[in-house]
Amino acid sequence: MKSTVMVNAAVLPAPGVKPLVRQYVLPPINEGECLLAIVASEVCGTDVHLYHGRLAGVPYPLIPGHVSVGRIEQMGGPLYYVDGKPVSIGDIVTFLDVYGTCGKCMYCSVWKASTRCPHRKVYGITVGAEEQPGLSGGWAEYMILRRGTQLLQLPAEVSPASWIGGGCGLPTAVHAIELSQIKLGDRVLIQGSGPVGLNAALLALLSGAGWVGVIGSPNTRLQAAKSFGVDLTLDIAESTPEARAKAVRSATGGHGADIVIEASGNPAAIPEGCSLARDNGKYIIVGQYTDNGDIPINPHLHINRKHLSIQGCWGSDFSHVYRAMEVLSRFNRNYNWESFISKRYSLVDVALALDDVENRRVVKAVISPSND
Amino acid sequence: MKSTVMVNAAVLPAPGVKPLVRQYVLPPINEGECLLAIVASEVCGTDVHLYHGRLAGVPYPLIPGHVSVGRIEQMGGPLYYVDGKPVSIGDIVTFLDVYGTCGKCMYCSVWKASTRCPHRKVYGITVGAEEQPGLSGGWAEYMILRRGTQLLQLPAEVSPASWIGGGCGLPTAVHAIELSQIKLGDRVLIQGSGPVGLNAALLALLSGAGWVGVIGSPNTRLQAAKSFGVDLTLDIAESTPEARAKAVRSATGGHGADIVIEASGNPAAIPEGCSLARDNGKYIIVGQYTDNGDIPINPHLHINRKHLSIQGCWGSDFSHVYRAMEVLSRFNRNYNWESFISKRYSLVDVALALDDVENRRVVKAVISPSND
Amino acid sequence: MKSTVMVNAAVLPAPGVKPLVRQYVLPPINEGECLLAIVASEVCGTDVHLYHGRLAGVPYPLIPGHVSVGRIEQMGGPLYYVDGKPVSIGDIVTFLDVYGTCGKCMYCSVWKASTRCPHRKVYGITVGAEEQPGLSGGWAEYMILRRGTQLLQLPAEVSPASWIGGGCGLPTAVHAIELSQIKLGDRVLIQGSGPVGLNAALLALLSGAGWVGVIGSPNTRLQAAKSFGVDLTLDIAESTPEARAKAVRSATGGHGADIVIEASGNPAAIPEGCSLARDNGKYIIVGQYTDNGDIPINPHLHINRKHLSIQGCWGSDFSHVYRAMEVLSRFNRNYNWESFISKRYSLVDVALALDDVENRRVVKAVISPSND
Amino acid sequence: MKSTVMVNAAVLPAPGVKPLVRQYVLPPINEGECLLAIVASEVCGTDVHLYHGRLAGVPYPLIPGHVSVGRIEQMGGPLYYVDGKPVSIGDIVTFLDVYGTCGKCMYCSVWKASTRCPHRKVYGITVGAEEQPGLSGGWAEYMILRRGTQLLQLPAEVSPASWIGGGCGLPTAVHAIELSQIKLGDRVLIQGSGPVGLNAALLALLSGAGWVGVIGSPNTRLQAAKSFGVDLTLDIAESTPEARAKAVRSATGGHGADIVIEASGNPAAIPEGCSLARDNGKYIIVGQYTDNGDIPINPHLHINRKHLSIQGCWGSDFSHVYRAMEVLSRFNRNYNWESFISKRYSLVDVALALDDVENRRVVKAVISPSND
Repeated sequence: MKSTVMVNAAVLPAPGVKPLVRQYVLPPINEGECLLAIVASEVCGTDVHLYHGRLAGVPYPLIPGHVSVGRIEQMGGPLYYVDGKPVSIGDIVTFLDVYGTCGKCMYCSVWKASTRCPHRKVYGITVGAEEQPGLSGGWAEYMILRRGTQLLQLPAEVSPASWIGGGCGLPTAVHAIELSQIKLGDRVLIQGSGPVGLNAALLALLSGAGWVGVIGSPNTRLQAAKSFGVDLTLDIAESTPEARAKAVRSATGGHGADIVIEASGNPAAIPEGCSLARDNGKYIIVGQYTDNGDIPINPHLHINRKHLSIQGCWGSDFSHVYRAMEVLSRFNRNYNWESFISKRYSLVDVALALDDVENRRVVKAVISPSND
Repeated sequence: MKSTVMVNAAVLPAPGVKPLVRQYVLPPINEGECLLAIVASEVCGTDVHLYHGRLAGVPYPLIPGHVSVGRIEQMGGPLYYVDGKPVSIGDIVTFLDVYGTCGKCMYCSVWKASTRCPHRKVYGITVGAEEQPGLSGGWAEYMILRRGTQLLQLPAEVSPASWIGGGCGLPTAVHAIELSQIKLGDRVLIQGSGPVGLNAALLALLSGAGWVGVIGSPNTRLQAAKSFGVDLTLDIAESTPEARAKAVRSATGGHGADIVIEASGNPAAIPEGCSLARDNGKYIIVGQYTDNGDIPINPHLHINRKHLSIQGCWGSDFSHVYRAMEVLSRFNRNYNWESFISKRYSLVDVALALDDVENRRVVKAVISPSND
Repeated sequence: MKSTVMVNAAVLPAPGVKPLVRQYVLPPINEGECLLAIVASEVCGTDVHLYHGRLAGVPYPLIPGHVSVGRIEQMGGPLYYVDGKPVSIGDIVTFLDVYGTCGKCMYCSVWKASTRCPHRKVYGITVGAEEQPGLSGGWAEYMILRRGTQLLQLPAEVSPASWIGGGCGLPTAVHAIELSQIKLGDRVLIQGSGPVGLNAALLALLSGAGWVGVIGSPNTRLQAAKSFGVDLTLDIAESTPEARAKAVRSATGGHGADIVIEASGNPAAIPEGCSLARDNGKYIIVGQYTDNGDIPINPHLHINRKHLSIQGCWGSDFSHVYRAMEVLSRFNRNYNWESFISKRYSLVDVALALDDVENRRVVKAVISPSND
Repeated sequence: MKSTVMVNAAVLPAPGVKPLVRQYVLPPINEGECLLAIVASEVCGTDVHLYHGRLAGVPYPLIPGHVSVGRIEQMGGPLYYVDGKPVSIGDIVTFLDVYGTCGKCMYCSVWKASTRCPHRKVYGITVGAEEQPGLSGGWAEYMILRRGTQLLQLPAEVSPASWIGGGCGLPTAVHAIELSQIKLGDRVLIQGSGPVGLNAALLALLSGAGWVGVIGSPNTRLQAAKSFGVDLTLDIAESTPEARAKAVRSATGGHGADIVIEASGNPAAIPEGCSLARDNGKYIIVGQYTDNGDIPINPHLHINRKHLSIQGCWGSDFSHVYRAMEVLSRFNRNYNWESFISKRYSLVDVALALDDVENRRVVKAVISPSND
């Protein structure tokens, strides 16, 4: 006789509707799938967007939570890590939140740009709670990972809280830093002091930058940046564009930054970022994740005459998650990503967590179902 | 006893003032300099901008003419070509219109972006007629090339008229094509059918593109593009943005072009170009040579989510001129760049030439002082 | 009642043992698979290596034939081309000879080097005749393509014979040319005049090279190179290294070639290729497909002081096959790849075909089962 | 009345002949030149090669000393730093040891590979003591820098001893690291523990490597590597190739290093380095500065099948010296490059210094004329 197991999950029923806890029947685990007992799941800015219905094509009701850590409880047949090692029951793992990348479309197989594959699905964002087999987000006691999901075991020196402290901002920043190809001594300016911006600043420091500046707010986040070695911080709420330009030019021999990384989400950052990069510099735009409208730029002054290189950065693939783990594994003893976590919330407090993130009362919020 | 030689030159006295012919005393040729009897000099869109005073920092009165071909008449000591061969009296040569690049500033020696060297000067654009030793533009019987100017001999198979038919648009297009890194089979869209656009289209075809489209006008230029093998032409004056998008998508499997090269000078081309590139495609912006104001773009849709790469392209260096000559030397028998020349003008007809270029009555106009 | 269909296939029973024709029972087509009636299949140098047992890890008995064209006869469920279009019964297709690339290992998902994926298998080379479901090579009346094999439809302008005329040498050359990143006017030297070398020479011409030279033999192949536009050919059998060095230096301003592509398979080509590249040039090594032993090089003279860039090139992925088809589709009217085919052979004449290829009596041999 | 000033300098009279101190008349300083009172000058492995006559084309007698720090004593007219700031009497400076790079040859102006410019000259190596105006090496009380030499002022936080502690190995390592394009988490193996190897190891750590290993000797140098954070050291004198391979594979998931940097000067390092790099990895060869003969490699196993990328690295340009100073300025407080200096020598003890360097009794030796 088989008993029915019920799983608690926090659900966004529809755009703009408050999250609530629902119970789902735990289905059988099919071949290629695995069952994860969630230890911790991130709350990030995307989740706020999901709550307000700002992303297109999201299938509500939705169990959010795209970056999560859990314990392997069941497997539908043998699974393997990227290095060929078999996955075992009890392993503490995270996973690439993207699955279903087809490997066969023009993006995957000809253009080598798998983050634009039209078949990719993202746990907690583009997979609805009612889509089979269910339990598709990390704000729940259990989650079912679909066939082909890439798992990554947490090494001893990386706690679940450290990984969630990095959150999706860390692999996103790894991607942005990869595109920026920092050379030893380069002067790097970050626009934005959210999780992506702070991680990008830290990774720039670890990549040999000669100077790193951050424009952002609120002051607590800028203090965090200062604490791990950022050379200059500028509070966007308490400075004029002219003052920022003056400060950046003063720190870069009058030329502007070799590399600017936009991680603010504010369209107004774009023309300012173009201006603050030096001629023939690089500008990585990673923060414009949602459509916040148009912004005027001057193509002559901002792009052509500057001989500027601009690179949009969208999504992460497994390499970014893998490298993020390598970074955490090596540098967590020095930088303690866990300290980004301001507060932990149970499943019933998800609404409060969203409110705290939206109002920037916390750097990083984490959902902890009762599994640890 | 030495006689005084007088040289006729067409001069722009001041912004907006009609050009006229002035006579200058031929000065002695100093060490490192050489005297060139001008055979042909280009009239390009930049010259129209100069006439109207649209470029900042131009020292009027000015003898225009930055791309020219001439015969070596005198040398102030031995000079050498890039391959080490000595320059001889009577050689038919052209030259990089930029000189004075310092080799020592941050742009030249650290950032390897010599087209942004603040010390570079451009014959016919940023050197005034009254700056010593004078005769600093090609719309004249003679021109004096300053010490360090890089000369390039015309091989037998490249006539002066072919080189001027290519004009400054050819090395500019070489630079844009270099930045676009076309792969075999790539689909390349050119915005603009002026000299830069037409040359870029032709060079894309020669670089292994699988499909080349051109958006431009007037129809005569689009016909020229068709004649040398362009697959699709779209008349900007007779099509809507929607129709153009539909045509480009239809030719690119619904995705947009792998590479878009902007060579139009119109800010409105920028958001359209972003849209017409495929996700993770490349967009080279080379046409925004003057400041024509701002244009709204959507950083989420146009850059970030597209994972688009945008590269501003400013100026040419000697490598582009050298490669332009290699191209002309090899392919001129097939494509006859001389045919771009619509009309020749003497020094007294310079005003007419500018008017014809401005009103696009000609593809390429050439000034022929009486030296051939 | 179901009748049993028997399929004729040419088989290599073991290393060094003459090929013979065997009959196999046509199995049912499972989900994800498809049945191809072979129209034409290539004989290439690899097949000669297979016959002699020179490749490690080959599972004999083997049905050779990795590049093939066929007609879709059956499908185990719907299949799609890379552009999303459904595959239909009767379509004339080719396919990437590599399948099973896992998408999940370090090579596939972190290092973006899928040609080094340890799980990849190659039809006609690393899949034995007895491996389920069988019919794993193109030298047969029918072939069964495994789940996940990437199909490519032949457009109207590309005949099966043209595709086989290009053979595996064409996508291999596309890969080598991609790595060589030719710029307009570059001088490119090819070592080897087999199918890879000839295709590389042709693709270099189509990519804007300013000069292309080929070192190879026999003379008939060098004549072919000349016929499609190669500037200089040097017969390896009738020239000394000194004479070749002199000829290449004479054609490259004394410096050596900007890019050298090795496609000879002879280790002795390596030090010569290093010497014939200019300082800071590029050297692509694609021909050393089998282990022919060591060769002495001088790391100071050949690599370090030259500031030389050397790139090994192994295998092809779908992008190279896709781009090869784009090239053929566009340029076949000018270059007629079908003309590389010297002779056609039936399944019973496979031994003769191998002998003709080994002794270079033919440029390209093709196996034609009786399906067209 | 003008008095004659005599300058003491250590001179190598001819290959293999012991150095001695000679006196030279201080000549007048011409326009574009400057006079430097030498504070410290490096002794490096190249100087040992010069003593033994192992480099071709060296004009003896020679005053060695290519990396030096000095105080500006006289200037023949105004001079400027790279940022445009004027040079002043009394400034403590170093300089790019290469001058005379022409900016006009194929290497400088077309191929952007100025380290292969045939006109470049190197102080202390390719400029003889008797070449006008003399005083062309740093092992002397004074040195005369030629027109166009690029100066770099030492910031307050970089002592002359720190800069010499870095020596020419530091910019050389900056160049090698630039070519290696390290990504976050990459595993980097260095062959050689001389100044270039140790600096490369340190810069790899500063560039975000996830693991750094060093193969070298003697043990004191490997201890130095350990002390600044290298993960694994292997003593070449006390290990077999098999043991080294095992250790590297064990540290890299069985694959080999993502990046190998050869800085040993031993040809035998080359095939071992190819083997220790992972498939599709990168191999930078920077240590083969002199011709130590041939070495057998297997082009199939070492290059082609590995899909390996090999890059020769020759010489430094100003960007590498500039970035070296940025690195030192930022990280010297953490890593104390001055500690690489084992011993200081006066001009009369130059023979002893060479002997100590040759026999690896010191990591870094420095010549201190009596100027500080």
